[in-house]
Amino acid sequence: MTNRAINFYAGPAGLPFEALQRAQEELLDFAGTGMSVMEISHRSKEYDAVHEEAISLTKELMGIPDNYKVLLLQGGAHLSFGMIPMNLLRKGRKADYITTGNWAEKAFKEAKLVAGDNVREAASTKSENFARLPKASELDINPEAAFVHFTSNNTVEGTQWKEFPKTDKPYICDMSSDIMWRPFDVNQFGLIYAGAQKNLGPSGVTLTIVREDFLEMCECKDLPSYLRYPLHADKNSLYNTPPTFGIYLLRNVLAYNKSIGGLKAIEANNLKKAELLYGCIDKHEGFFKPFVTEKADRSTMNVDFFLPTEELTDAFVKEAKKNNMVGLKGYRDVGGIRVSTYNAVTVANVETLVAFMDEFVKKNG
Amino acid sequence: MTNRAINFYAGPAGLPFEALQRAQEELLDFAGTGMSVMEISHRSKEYDAVHEEAISLTKELMGIPDNYKVLLLQGGAHLSFGMIPMNLLRKGRKADYITTGNWAEKAFKEAKLVAGDNVREAASTKSENFARLPKASELDINPEAAFVHFTSNNTVEGTQWKEFPKTDKPYICDMSSDIMWRPFDVNQFGLIYAGAQKNLGPSGVTLTIVREDFLEMCECKDLPSYLRYPLHADKNSLYNTPPTFGIYLLRNVLAYNKSIGGLKAIEANNLKKAELLYGCIDKHEGFFKPFVTEKADRSTMNVDFFLPTEELTDAFVKEAKKNNMVGLKGYRDVGGIRVSTYNAVTVANVETLVAFMDEFVKKNG
Repeated sequence: MTNRAINFYAGPAGLPFEALQRAQEELLDFAGTGMSVMEISHRSKEYDAVHEEAISLTKELMGIPDNYKVLLLQGGAHLSFGMIPMNLLRKGRKADYITTGNWAEKAFKEAKLVAGDNVREAASTKSENFARLPKASELDINPEAAFVHFTSNNTVEGTQWKEFPKTDKPYICDMSSDIMWRPFDVNQFGLIYAGAQKNLGPSGVTLTIVREDFLEMCECKDLPSYLRYPLHADKNSLYNTPPTFGIYLLRNVLAYNKSIGGLKAIEANNLKKAELLYGCIDKHEGFFKPFVTEKADRSTMNVDFFLPTEELTDAFVKEAKKNNMVGLKGYRDVGGIRVSTYNAVTVANVETLVAFMDEFVKKNG
Repeated sequence: MTNRAINFYAGPAGLPFEALQRAQEELLDFAGTGMSVMEISHRSKEYDAVHEEAISLTKELMGIPDNYKVLLLQGGAHLSFGMIPMNLLRKGRKADYITTGNWAEKAFKEAKLVAGDNVREAASTKSENFARLPKASELDINPEAAFVHFTSNNTVEGTQWKEFPKTDKPYICDMSSDIMWRPFDVNQFGLIYAGAQKNLGPSGVTLTIVREDFLEMCECKDLPSYLRYPLHADKNSLYNTPPTFGIYLLRNVLAYNKSIGGLKAIEANNLKKAELLYGCIDKHEGFFKPFVTEKADRSTMNVDFFLPTEELTDAFVKEAKKNNMVGLKGYRDVGGIRVSTYNAVTVANVETLVAFMDEFVKKNG
């Protein structure tokens, strides 16, 4: 374990060591079968136990009410961007999208492609480079909208809705980059989707949580089967062969999350990490310049900041790498540094980074 | 390795032990990164090397000409069933489908859902329970068809096109259950797709091989991005986050396949396995009754047969299990026994099964 890199990648990202270690131990012989879990039928009782456990741990950790279905799909947020309007918005229903970043904008554009003028932007902070979230007064919700789509955490820009947008509409939410970062009330959500590769597991699994009335709203009998939410719900995500090994790893991560105290404990870690990191940035405010303009909107998952020059930015990334810290280069559209501190990043990892940052300022400030 | 089960599952199915062992060794530290391959960015140079190797090994092993793109997608054959007509058949183009089994029929139905009367059945053996393939004289190809879709191996029924259907049209082919079982000439194929979970790797990766003129034929600008073949081709399957760990495992399997002599060597093994198994069935023809009615159509990948009674079938499955052989129960629609002998099943595995079958007949025949 001593030679583990300190992983600040934005996704695919680090996973809990214990979850990986379990996978390694069981890789050639799962549950006494003499086979890897990826080698057994998705209809076998051994795989079924994993599948059910991944779903029940999701329900338990998030406190999901009984009127929701938990689906384990493929295609990442990108395929969900299309499936949502294809299921819900092709026959005249209307929806509002809040565009707060790179990914939120993609979700909106994909919905427009399918549903045209049935979707509209309820707010956008694009004119300010998405460096803050819209205020409540800036939200212009269509009374006819069946739902409001938003992105809970903006991975590229480093903003996060600590309080969800104020509206009485049901939400549809892309939670790819902060799902399970803390407990929250699921009840206002009609549909939640999240690519696993940040907080949950490997890429290739899309956790999807749908309220029953949203399943009933789907108008999808003319869609290819794979694209229909109600079919996956009816078949417990076993209509087709699911990504079994990815779901197994998701199970391992969730079981580990439960073992350390669930989302309450994870939230405490995440708040501590954010406090350390933003504390360091603010302490050196002449040197580190945060990308996000409103402190209240700062993400606990992705922290973007700039150094005084490109040369210093490059030196920062390079020296961090020498110190075993990887994944710090900012996203191409933003530049600078991005530190991704998903659930599997420990407080100790962030302490190491903060010590390095202090030292870097001392040498170069 | 001694306690490895002998795995005859129909899919997800056994993988080469060497490919899994490599994954186990590297699981916590890939290529000296101090991270698992599933924990690193899909834009990192370390992952990129894996991605490129998976693609180049596919090209090399299959002898794929330069006018084809190899794509690494998600959603299995099911999503491909929809993507094919969505990309190629929504604007008036016509196509023929040959329905030779459970999966071939699904592909046809999904295409009809999208393209209506633009698709038609060029032949079907459904009235004979798909127990044989159509003969050349039974193929009724529409001169206006842009392609003919067929399923190279029928997993449920155990038939396989040793010689591809005789037509001068380009093929689109679902090769999920026999891709890379032997070398073949790719040139007549416009598009090949295959869920990885039988011959190639874990579920969650769909190997897709498209000829450039078929990419150009796609009319898909109004489709959600994930569903567009040309976009995936332009971005080398990195438009969105691919299933990185699944692709890594695919790479391991392909590298192993190359190390043992490529598809020529694999074909020799598969022919030997089929000879042993069908030899045993035919030797005991009063006891084992094959499902497939035409010897020429017998699959080298899935071998379906019946025993005289239900009780003997159950006893066969049970005793085989006691002898470390799993996955032998027939598909629910067919019943009886199905032996799946994909590439990773060794000649020795089949010898063990055949010895067991001989013994079973001796005791119960």
